[in-house]
Amino acid sequence: MFILRSICRKGMKRMMNIKKLLVVGGDKRQLYMADSLMHKGFDVELYGFSPLDGFEHMSYVGDKSFESAAAGANAVILPLPVSRDGITVTSQGGGRTVTLEELSDILERGQTVFAGMMSNSWKSNFFKKGIRVFDYFEREELVVNNAIPTAQGVIKIAIDNLEITLHSSSFAITGYGRTAKVLARILKAMGANVTVAARKCSDLAWARSEGFEGVHIKDLPLCADKFDVLVNTVPTLVVDDSILAKLKKGCLIIEIASAPYGIDFARAKELGLEVIVAGSLPGKTAPKTAGEIISDAISNIIKEGS
Amino acid sequence: MFILRSICRKGMKRMMNIKKLLVVGGDKRQLYMADSLMHKGFDVELYGFSPLDGFEHMSYVGDKSFESAAAGANAVILPLPVSRDGITVTSQGGGRTVTLEELSDILERGQTVFAGMMSNSWKSNFFKKGIRVFDYFEREELVVNNAIPTAQGVIKIAIDNLEITLHSSSFAITGYGRTAKVLARILKAMGANVTVAARKCSDLAWARSEGFEGVHIKDLPLCADKFDVLVNTVPTLVVDDSILAKLKKGCLIIEIASAPYGIDFARAKELGLEVIVAGSLPGKTAPKTAGEIISDAISNIIKEGS
Amino acid sequence: MFILRSICRKGMKRMMNIKKLLVVGGDKRQLYMADSLMHKGFDVELYGFSPLDGFEHMSYVGDKSFESAAAGANAVILPLPVSRDGITVTSQGGGRTVTLEELSDILERGQTVFAGMMSNSWKSNFFKKGIRVFDYFEREELVVNNAIPTAQGVIKIAIDNLEITLHSSSFAITGYGRTAKVLARILKAMGANVTVAARKCSDLAWARSEGFEGVHIKDLPLCADKFDVLVNTVPTLVVDDSILAKLKKGCLIIEIASAPYGIDFARAKELGLEVIVAGSLPGKTAPKTAGEIISDAISNIIKEGS
Amino acid sequence: MFILRSICRKGMKRMMNIKKLLVVGGDKRQLYMADSLMHKGFDVELYGFSPLDGFEHMSYVGDKSFESAAAGANAVILPLPVSRDGITVTSQGGGRTVTLEELSDILERGQTVFAGMMSNSWKSNFFKKGIRVFDYFEREELVVNNAIPTAQGVIKIAIDNLEITLHSSSFAITGYGRTAKVLARILKAMGANVTVAARKCSDLAWARSEGFEGVHIKDLPLCADKFDVLVNTVPTLVVDDSILAKLKKGCLIIEIASAPYGIDFARAKELGLEVIVAGSLPGKTAPKTAGEIISDAISNIIKEGS
Repeated sequence: MFILRSICRKGMKRMMNIKKLLVVGGDKRQLYMADSLMHKGFDVELYGFSPLDGFEHMSYVGDKSFESAAAGANAVILPLPVSRDGITVTSQGGGRTVTLEELSDILERGQTVFAGMMSNSWKSNFFKKGIRVFDYFEREELVVNNAIPTAQGVIKIAIDNLEITLHSSSFAITGYGRTAKVLARILKAMGANVTVAARKCSDLAWARSEGFEGVHIKDLPLCADKFDVLVNTVPTLVVDDSILAKLKKGCLIIEIASAPYGIDFARAKELGLEVIVAGSLPGKTAPKTAGEIISDAISNIIKEGS
Repeated sequence: MFILRSICRKGMKRMMNIKKLLVVGGDKRQLYMADSLMHKGFDVELYGFSPLDGFEHMSYVGDKSFESAAAGANAVILPLPVSRDGITVTSQGGGRTVTLEELSDILERGQTVFAGMMSNSWKSNFFKKGIRVFDYFEREELVVNNAIPTAQGVIKIAIDNLEITLHSSSFAITGYGRTAKVLARILKAMGANVTVAARKCSDLAWARSEGFEGVHIKDLPLCADKFDVLVNTVPTLVVDDSILAKLKKGCLIIEIASAPYGIDFARAKELGLEVIVAGSLPGKTAPKTAGEIISDAISNIIKEGS
Repeated sequence: MFILRSICRKGMKRMMNIKKLLVVGGDKRQLYMADSLMHKGFDVELYGFSPLDGFEHMSYVGDKSFESAAAGANAVILPLPVSRDGITVTSQGGGRTVTLEELSDILERGQTVFAGMMSNSWKSNFFKKGIRVFDYFEREELVVNNAIPTAQGVIKIAIDNLEITLHSSSFAITGYGRTAKVLARILKAMGANVTVAARKCSDLAWARSEGFEGVHIKDLPLCADKFDVLVNTVPTLVVDDSILAKLKKGCLIIEIASAPYGIDFARAKELGLEVIVAGSLPGKTAPKTAGEIISDAISNIIKEGS
Repeated sequence: MFILRSICRKGMKRMMNIKKLLVVGGDKRQLYMADSLMHKGFDVELYGFSPLDGFEHMSYVGDKSFESAAAGANAVILPLPVSRDGITVTSQGGGRTVTLEELSDILERGQTVFAGMMSNSWKSNFFKKGIRVFDYFEREELVVNNAIPTAQGVIKIAIDNLEITLHSSSFAITGYGRTAKVLARILKAMGANVTVAARKCSDLAWARSEGFEGVHIKDLPLCADKFDVLVNTVPTLVVDDSILAKLKKGCLIIEIASAPYGIDFARAKELGLEVIVAGSLPGKTAPKTAGEIISDAISNIIKEGS
């Protein structure tokens, strides 16, 4: 476990009085999250899951008991993302699905909702009823921690799709945010040559201090023909024709930014370049670690009371 | 390309007069090897392959021309391993297969054979006819270079089979030879906790100097319950019941030593532990790099004349 | 040289029309800066220096020619810090010193001043006369780049003052800004055990992602007895009696924050702990690199026109 | 402490029956060694030392009691190197010096001597009397462990003598033995560009696998003009005029091999190149660690009985 949970606590006195948790929806990652929260001393029940190997010890709420379980919990934990269609709570657990509307009807003033990437309109719906909503995806430490499984997911994709070793291969990374930093560092440690393309002088200085090559994004076309892999981390168009047209045949392109994305997919296709759009890497590559990261974020929120 | 080819050359004057090469048998790795040898200036022909995407530019010998092609070559390059049954040259290329006997009939005094892991009896058969045989698998630099794709293959297996990230996970590595050294270093760079179990004080000192934990193999049972993964690199039994019985449930075991192996497979099975026997990793994880490594070893042999 | 100068240029069109530079005051670092600016194509003259070994090729302005040299320059470059007493320009060059007042009298509308850490009142004096002032110490990339020689300076102090190797020693670093990040990384690479003490959950997450131990600053007393060295990077009191009293006898303390400092010096003295206050490390440990870092910041300002 | 002492023990059953140790001669490193042996449970007395700060708790033998102390000890520990003139035991402790002849007269059959770098003739003198001699400098793990403080000593010399940071500087290392490996790794971790010059293809393959540039020593002249520092680790002439004449003005040369050395000092002087001959680095840079390394080697010998 890479996180000492007891340590973040700037507002310990204000700690929320939350003890009983109901986990609604999600995938294997949420099971691991629930397990981790149990180990931290919370009472945890699960709704919307069939018991899985390794999770037999957990407490599953049947369809009939959902309302009473929800009523009895101090907080309900919803998955990340909370919903894909804006209506139903995301679920791959095999049980009955729940809608956000249903939840907002059942929950009452004083209860709390933890959710990942909840829309502002739903947040305000809950607030209006006196239900506190905390979006754990807004926690900085969750985003930082997620950079590690995300980077590992990219490593796996690269290994699976290259005929050469990462050692001695050449990577371009566009953008230099959290995931880019962690990814660049691991790639370099594996012996890859890493070029970071960014805009800010200070980002380039940082990249160079770590031993990466740093080029202004505008200068990337000048050296684009040397890369075996290009990984984009910027969610707005940066990898356009000026760059794509200069990449060598067979260069692998991996998009890990979220919509609206940073790569001109259509142009890449015209050029015959393979683009892999890789989303939700933490849950896929390491569901247990991903679940613990959410567990940590939620318990930090509870400790800090905000 | 991570190898400056021009650099190893202790016996440049004795350089062998080899120019025309016939590649017989093998898999994609041998195609990449052939391509790399072409880029070094050799005349290369291939027998036993159907043209593959990306290798259209190469020169393929048809069944009828095999004898004349073999007669015209200075050297024949056989795959790694040269044969699995001791009779037929290994081939996954789709063409007609060739036997070692056939080859030894066709080749004549003064010609050269490059092969990987050829048996002593076949070596002596060729020698008797005045045909020089060089086993490139005996080249130290090939074994060192192969450690990198092998380690990468282990990384991939671990990522594919763990629900946690390598970061913060705990690895035991038994043995501290070439692959173990490279693997330990990459794992540590990815944030894993690495324990090296070896016998020699000096190996343990080395391991500790790199920041790994070093334990005598006899003491491994004392800390065996903390590992998420155990990788064995020793080809004789070291991972026996004393260790296996102490591993935690769900510990992944990866065997990368060659036969007769270092893990008590039967006992592991009884204990419900999953063992992955991972052979030929370089060719699988990075055929191009693996081919270039062989190409480098062969050209080093030619340069050194021995 | 670790900086590709041509690369930062977000406002290339607005590039300032600056060609002739007069360097006034400073130490060896400013000589290296001047040399680097010459290599970038600027006309550079120096005032207030006696020629030094290795700098004979540079152009030195004599006392009598100062006014005309200043009048003929597009910009005057002052040292870092520009002045220690608020009156005289810092100088260790051996020549006549210059006051800021003198400079402000000689310079005219349209000329430019580059200075490090100039007081606001002096900035406004120059501005009133129509003279543009750029404080290069406010450039983010300079601060990032300076983290490297600063960290190296700390490494040197630690080596000089410890009887053990950095390898296997234990360091606490309070704060997790730029220098702390670089220092922690180098120490870890040298085999030290590094604990980062910070307040923010996200900083602790970052530290852990890099393989450092991360503890909330409030919890530092709990593990303070294990450190061989404590390095403070926070410029306000954080290392107080609660921490100092728990350090082991002989723990080396290094202060690299600027005034008002983060260590309770008086208390440390009472406890018999050695504190080394280490300022201006870049210029001391690596004057050439430090000079080039300033040169880069100034040329970036000129390119960006702001 | 980077060495778990309990771990090396291949011959535990044969463990020697040694309990009382007399430490004769040496410097601060031997005091730390003695202290470490005390912590391992041995009875330790010291001869030839005046009590030093921090070592008041140890037991010092006065001049008059030397013979009885020697007679009562199971083993006598001599320093590294045991003698510089072949006659007197090395001593910087301030007390009376002892000759090897004196020792060989006092000691009796059944006693043991631990010494570092004892000449064969002295070894045979002791053996003839039935006194066992163990040269701890021949222990592989001591040599490996010493590579770390040696490398740190080189780092310090480089920092003290360069005007640039190690980050982004260029190092050549001739030879690729233990110290070279450790030094190269630390330098790279600090951001330096490292070129390893060696002869063997396999050494070059190793060096490249770690991300260093690897060049055959014969090709070093071709790239010698790019180095800021050259460190020689080979004890026979390799850095001759062909290399020296190509180094750039101001290149720092550090010799860490032992006599007869690997650098043509006379030629370097003619060329105006500064050469620093750096011996005994472990004791100088980290006497405590260096003493513990000897303590570990001795206790390993005692445990193994050979």
